[in-house]
Amino acid sequence: MARCVILLSGGMDSATVLAIARAEGHECYALSFDYGQKHRAELCAAKSLAKQLGAVEHRVMTIGMGQLGGSALTDANIEVPESGGEGIPITYVPARNTVFLSLGLGWAEVLGADAIYAGVNVVDYSGYPDCRPEYIAAFQAMANLATKCTVEGQPLEIRTPLINLSKAEIVAEGARLGVDFSITVSCYSADEQGAACGHCDACELRRQGFESTGVDDPTRYQA
Amino acid sequence: MARCVILLSGGMDSATVLAIARAEGHECYALSFDYGQKHRAELCAAKSLAKQLGAVEHRVMTIGMGQLGGSALTDANIEVPESGGEGIPITYVPARNTVFLSLGLGWAEVLGADAIYAGVNVVDYSGYPDCRPEYIAAFQAMANLATKCTVEGQPLEIRTPLINLSKAEIVAEGARLGVDFSITVSCYSADEQGAACGHCDACELRRQGFESTGVDDPTRYQA
Repeated sequence: MARCVILLSGGMDSATVLAIARAEGHECYALSFDYGQKHRAELCAAKSLAKQLGAVEHRVMTIGMGQLGGSALTDANIEVPESGGEGIPITYVPARNTVFLSLGLGWAEVLGADAIYAGVNVVDYSGYPDCRPEYIAAFQAMANLATKCTVEGQPLEIRTPLINLSKAEIVAEGARLGVDFSITVSCYSADEQGAACGHCDACELRRQGFESTGVDDPTRYQA
Repeated sequence: MARCVILLSGGMDSATVLAIARAEGHECYALSFDYGQKHRAELCAAKSLAKQLGAVEHRVMTIGMGQLGGSALTDANIEVPESGGEGIPITYVPARNTVFLSLGLGWAEVLGADAIYAGVNVVDYSGYPDCRPEYIAAFQAMANLATKCTVEGQPLEIRTPLINLSKAEIVAEGARLGVDFSITVSCYSADEQGAACGHCDACELRRQGFESTGVDDPTRYQA
């Protein structure tokens, strides 16, 4: 059975991607990052999801990138904003997907995996430069030259099966594949128990996704 | 004064690159990584070099990538080999330069830097895929699409001034710019005091570099 690495944040998108990777016949190695994010509850969610969705292994890797600051998600001096606003949001974390995909690339090489799955999608595309298809294509081109395995002829594909889906389509796909969305944590300001704020961009997108599909929304909100 | 990030390992190459970046008029922010390497003495060397060569700031970022294994430099079960051998050596660390450049990219964006300097060079090229000019060009193309600053039109250049130099030319350039090579640690099996083994690939390349230039070799070897 071919192996793959999944970047598993603990949110609904990466949970759905894990379910897709399994449905596509992969043995799944889930990788999460403790990078100084305020919403650390997502790491507990990732642990539960890896187990529920049948990952062979789940690792949480610590990266000291929070010390760089510059994002509302990692910097204590910048508040997570309510949803809306123009341009690239302050919740953007400098080079985050590049760092995460790079570490996934390292693990994939050690495992002899043939794919790395990541839950980037077109909705985030409106805001984050590192969620766009052209960015993923450029990362793939770089990865093809970066590692011993790719240079020696073993292909390693960056797969982003959600990249062209709306949030509603992601909900529908996850539901079809049996993802338990009650475990997932999307909120940028989730409390320690994983309850959502209901006001940030991530909460807004998630709520709209459930509303448009008619799938029951199991999100727990803060009191 | 334009800012730049320097990937500073503590070896002679990145020390020379730091001196070059300063000579090119940059305010230098040095970034080192505690990634589970056995030769941790290089981190003390990096600290001294950052100070001696006038970096404005030096950060050591912890990354848990050593847990991935797969390299003689990070895996306790794989011995660092003596020099020589065919193909990509076992000292290759999966995706290391991609991870380091990615974290450099994140810091560069937060700082508003216009360049990232890295000490990759043509000698390593014979062995490590992520030291080749075509790899660096692909990373640059990816970086151009990856960040808020590059997408918004502020260029961020990956500079590898040593890439086409021999080890001897690097020694000559470093000496010309006043790098104190006695501080630098290149050895993959350096002891806690930074003394070199004299037998690994890194020691071999370094010795040849000094021998061919006539610059005094201040390397301390283990007793």
